[in-house]
Amino acid sequence: MVNVGILGGTGYTGVELLRLLLAHPAVELHAVTSRAEAGKKLADLFPNLRGHTALTFTAPEDGWARGCDVVFSAAPNGVCMQQARALVKAGIKIIDLAADFRLKDAAAWEKWYGTPHACPELLKDAVYGLPETNRDKIRNATLVANPGCYPTAVQLGLLPLLEAGAVDATHLIADAKSGISGAGRKMEQHLMYAEASETMKAYAVAGHRHLPEICQGLEQATGQSVGITFVPHLAPMVRGIHATLYARLLDSGADVQALYERRYRAEPFVDVMPPGSHPETRSVRGANLCRLAIHRPQAGNTVVVLAVIDNLVKGAAGQAVQNFNIMVGLQETTGLGAAALVP
Amino acid sequence: MVNVGILGGTGYTGVELLRLLLAHPAVELHAVTSRAEAGKKLADLFPNLRGHTALTFTAPEDGWARGCDVVFSAAPNGVCMQQARALVKAGIKIIDLAADFRLKDAAAWEKWYGTPHACPELLKDAVYGLPETNRDKIRNATLVANPGCYPTAVQLGLLPLLEAGAVDATHLIADAKSGISGAGRKMEQHLMYAEASETMKAYAVAGHRHLPEICQGLEQATGQSVGITFVPHLAPMVRGIHATLYARLLDSGADVQALYERRYRAEPFVDVMPPGSHPETRSVRGANLCRLAIHRPQAGNTVVVLAVIDNLVKGAAGQAVQNFNIMVGLQETTGLGAAALVP
Amino acid sequence: MVNVGILGGTGYTGVELLRLLLAHPAVELHAVTSRAEAGKKLADLFPNLRGHTALTFTAPEDGWARGCDVVFSAAPNGVCMQQARALVKAGIKIIDLAADFRLKDAAAWEKWYGTPHACPELLKDAVYGLPETNRDKIRNATLVANPGCYPTAVQLGLLPLLEAGAVDATHLIADAKSGISGAGRKMEQHLMYAEASETMKAYAVAGHRHLPEICQGLEQATGQSVGITFVPHLAPMVRGIHATLYARLLDSGADVQALYERRYRAEPFVDVMPPGSHPETRSVRGANLCRLAIHRPQAGNTVVVLAVIDNLVKGAAGQAVQNFNIMVGLQETTGLGAAALVP
Amino acid sequence: MVNVGILGGTGYTGVELLRLLLAHPAVELHAVTSRAEAGKKLADLFPNLRGHTALTFTAPEDGWARGCDVVFSAAPNGVCMQQARALVKAGIKIIDLAADFRLKDAAAWEKWYGTPHACPELLKDAVYGLPETNRDKIRNATLVANPGCYPTAVQLGLLPLLEAGAVDATHLIADAKSGISGAGRKMEQHLMYAEASETMKAYAVAGHRHLPEICQGLEQATGQSVGITFVPHLAPMVRGIHATLYARLLDSGADVQALYERRYRAEPFVDVMPPGSHPETRSVRGANLCRLAIHRPQAGNTVVVLAVIDNLVKGAAGQAVQNFNIMVGLQETTGLGAAALVP
Repeated sequence: MVNVGILGGTGYTGVELLRLLLAHPAVELHAVTSRAEAGKKLADLFPNLRGHTALTFTAPEDGWARGCDVVFSAAPNGVCMQQARALVKAGIKIIDLAADFRLKDAAAWEKWYGTPHACPELLKDAVYGLPETNRDKIRNATLVANPGCYPTAVQLGLLPLLEAGAVDATHLIADAKSGISGAGRKMEQHLMYAEASETMKAYAVAGHRHLPEICQGLEQATGQSVGITFVPHLAPMVRGIHATLYARLLDSGADVQALYERRYRAEPFVDVMPPGSHPETRSVRGANLCRLAIHRPQAGNTVVVLAVIDNLVKGAAGQAVQNFNIMVGLQETTGLGAAALVP
Repeated sequence: MVNVGILGGTGYTGVELLRLLLAHPAVELHAVTSRAEAGKKLADLFPNLRGHTALTFTAPEDGWARGCDVVFSAAPNGVCMQQARALVKAGIKIIDLAADFRLKDAAAWEKWYGTPHACPELLKDAVYGLPETNRDKIRNATLVANPGCYPTAVQLGLLPLLEAGAVDATHLIADAKSGISGAGRKMEQHLMYAEASETMKAYAVAGHRHLPEICQGLEQATGQSVGITFVPHLAPMVRGIHATLYARLLDSGADVQALYERRYRAEPFVDVMPPGSHPETRSVRGANLCRLAIHRPQAGNTVVVLAVIDNLVKGAAGQAVQNFNIMVGLQETTGLGAAALVP
Repeated sequence: MVNVGILGGTGYTGVELLRLLLAHPAVELHAVTSRAEAGKKLADLFPNLRGHTALTFTAPEDGWARGCDVVFSAAPNGVCMQQARALVKAGIKIIDLAADFRLKDAAAWEKWYGTPHACPELLKDAVYGLPETNRDKIRNATLVANPGCYPTAVQLGLLPLLEAGAVDATHLIADAKSGISGAGRKMEQHLMYAEASETMKAYAVAGHRHLPEICQGLEQATGQSVGITFVPHLAPMVRGIHATLYARLLDSGADVQALYERRYRAEPFVDVMPPGSHPETRSVRGANLCRLAIHRPQAGNTVVVLAVIDNLVKGAAGQAVQNFNIMVGLQETTGLGAAALVP
Repeated sequence: MVNVGILGGTGYTGVELLRLLLAHPAVELHAVTSRAEAGKKLADLFPNLRGHTALTFTAPEDGWARGCDVVFSAAPNGVCMQQARALVKAGIKIIDLAADFRLKDAAAWEKWYGTPHACPELLKDAVYGLPETNRDKIRNATLVANPGCYPTAVQLGLLPLLEAGAVDATHLIADAKSGISGAGRKMEQHLMYAEASETMKAYAVAGHRHLPEICQGLEQATGQSVGITFVPHLAPMVRGIHATLYARLLDSGADVQALYERRYRAEPFVDVMPPGSHPETRSVRGANLCRLAIHRPQAGNTVVVLAVIDNLVKGAAGQAVQNFNIMVGLQETTGLGAAALVP
């Protein structure tokens, strides 16, 4: 058994991580922190966990993680970087589900997240936790930056095209629709039920924090400069991201479907659907999976890639468990075998 | 491993049963029938099962169940009774998720379901599959009638009061709210998204088929005649039943909370919440669980019981697996350990 | 034209009132107050009003209502009573959409709302604004207490039975389901989209503030003591209340359908549906209407009344406009003629 | 008063048209046809109309429209063209809300709609009813083809850019999200509540019938050949279209915001929002309005236009009434003044 702690377990990625880890056959859940809820039972905050754990939230005081082999941080942006140095020093591996270690450039981090980075010296060795591109580095990592939800869907959707040099990388379009849990459990007016139900809107069109992460990821994976217009939308559903990706083919004779099938043949958590498919987000609800479908409308040169994930699973907690499995030497699919909940 | 077949696997109870059985450690899924979809892959009808099974639907021809130890019937009302005699004769155990064997009285069946019963001689030995009242009989049963969704919530909510003789059994009220998957996967105008979203309505107030089942169940369990006004409502959600139950206490000094805790102490799938609780249906989404809370508003003599289940799990497929576990001698909780999906 | 002001126009009853008043042929909208939003355009807070008004929010300073004939208060509980004395003195009529003047007993108000009443001397002359029982008093009122949303549905649903002495008034049950806008525009965790979607729960079973209002209303209208168990539920929709009401008939020969049709024959905003009907909340969405259907399941002695309203219209802003029309001598239906928005 | 008939009034555009026409001050509703519902009261099919009309559905027999000045056809594709010749001959003006007269080329119609056109000789004189481009022709038209919902949003969103020659017209992208009422009231499995709720998917990526209509409209309005990739999505809401439009600027110095404000300054039903805005679909729910916002992310050369409409109003029934007002010489906004219903 691996001893595991969770830093900041009161948000949606937190409760999803708890759901997965409490059912994981190789995990011993050691401590879950929350400053606000310290002393409260996990199951009192999250009634779905009644009967599954007797743990209470712990305050994140010095030494709270003693005895842990791995710490997941499900805390908001900026929290993990306050503890990372000490945890690394104590020999504890870290998987951060927030953004603190996603960008390699501390200046970029400060620009997009509005505060100086607390431990820039760790950025160099932090590994970006997208197993489909970084599996080997993750295996030996001490500190893994778990990707954002949009970046997971967009990168998995575009990687085969870019790696193959098949499209114009400077004019990509990512039109993404997200369920509302993607905004986290924080209270904001526009996330109230009576505001967000029965409506759709785009947001952050001028620039979303996931944009530099997407660019960095695609550039690292493909070695070329990438230009992308990224427009996120809020959809009236709890879970799910549907990314609709547009790119212009350089060679009109390319067999794009074959390209994707080849690229992801060995990937346990990427499903390339047959030609003509339209994946729906609910087909991955609760499951650690990205489903993809490839189209070339009117046989033209614009490729349309449809990519769906559950933002809380393959876009957050599930991918974190996948990284965990890789880091501790378990089979990558351990504890991640459930089918999606439909309907 | 137990060899299992499913008769009629294309509805919502079917796909939920598939989700549970494909992850069940002691089940070998042998055949799933559908006349309309014969030859089609299960995963083509239910994309959430892609990667989880390579099975195709089989036509329900004679002998389709050869080699099965147990057959679940997830077909509509009236189908299982056409095959039951032959299956029983072949030594195959049956768990019917529909209504064919729920009512003991063939005349009542004909009245409420509008067609004569095809094998009334089997009704006597059929066991009503509510483990919380019938566990011992289920253990030795050949044919189990899995309870309806409303009857599960209403009976579990009222049983302790009635068994204890604590309330006026002749004037019970069950006001139940169900998600729309409770109506099955059939197409009806009022179940369309644009008809059922953002609205609530009662239906079948004059008399719902689950009423005689509820009465029979409560009368068998308590040995007294029961009078109940049952009003089902359609709520704009996919899964979940919330039954709000009203009964008048005969003894105003009764400790109703203690009564419930005692009654269900050993039950793995009934959770009596602390006083003052308000269970929500999502706290059991995807889980085989009934959560209950007990109230006495203004300390008066009207007891209010709040009972929530997932209609497709504890109200259908999950309870069927629970019955299966009991019938084949497995631990009752096998394959049913997942926490609910929240949010 | 009647000069109208709105005290506290930033909530859901506020924006609904604005929608109705901006289209009202006899209303000149004079001022809308908000301390927090003073100086901001109404249409910047509520984009649906872009193009319909150029007004900005005013701070509620002394004299803000100068020139108004009528002030609607759509502010939270406890605000209107701070201004009522001054407004009345200035000869301005008041319609309070909150609870400040609903209860006749200042001690009861303090008990249920947690703060002493600021102007108890006005309670005596305040008129409870349910036109179907109080039309004549409303006509001459200076200060009208607009009923709560649940009390409107429950009282309209039960009044005919109680006025006729047809049922046991001491054991009534009101099981009510409300859309989430009923909780107002305030931010609370359980009202977030990702908390309130795809789930149902009861709340405040121990005692809801609308209970004393319901009892007082029914007792005043019928002159008898009333005992009612009131259980409100939160349903995953924005608008709508569905009240399911249960009462026991004293005379099993009563023609309850006729009773309701007779009682409401002349009422423009109460629709008694034909026998066997199941009204849905969306059938009154955006409309100032209460639809009722009457059932006697299995021809027994329990009467089931189904009552639906839009909580923001007949349950708030629409009823306020109806009261306004009566108070200023307009035809009662002025500005309230729109059909519900379906689908 | 203008005498009006509706051909095929049982769908969603039908009931929305009824809602608008029953409140229209210059309309006398004469007859509403339905073969299936002939003899039934309109209000029995659409309970929201109870109290607003006593009309019953008429069978669409010869002469049903006698006495009508104008006939709206809200029937499915292919119905209006069966009656158009006779209606035109009888001197009755026609507004077809379906697709029969939208495409100028009968061969294209046959290709996309799968059946030969019944009266190709009328196509030449049919006027495409987008008032923002065709107002003068509509004024004198006998037969108006009311635009599709997607084409309305996409064309209004792209017209200013194309008319000004500001973008590369050969590589446009329209990523559109529609509420489910856009599919009509017909029963299809994927439109059931339990299939369409809490999920998103693209559909018809290979080619949607609205694509040739969009191309034809943009080409007629701008005189240039247009290439567009159009990907529609189904979103879990009843009403609303959100079109997100991408185009590449030819002149990076263009003031796109000013271009839109100028183009639509005099349009009563197009609202160009301030820079930086993100219109939401609910802000036009029930209202005859297209709201637009213009963005240039990272000040690059990709323009992003956000366009929202209510698919049943500006995308169908409301636009039909707008065309009607123009055709019969009324003020264009008559009967279309209501603000959107929010929340």
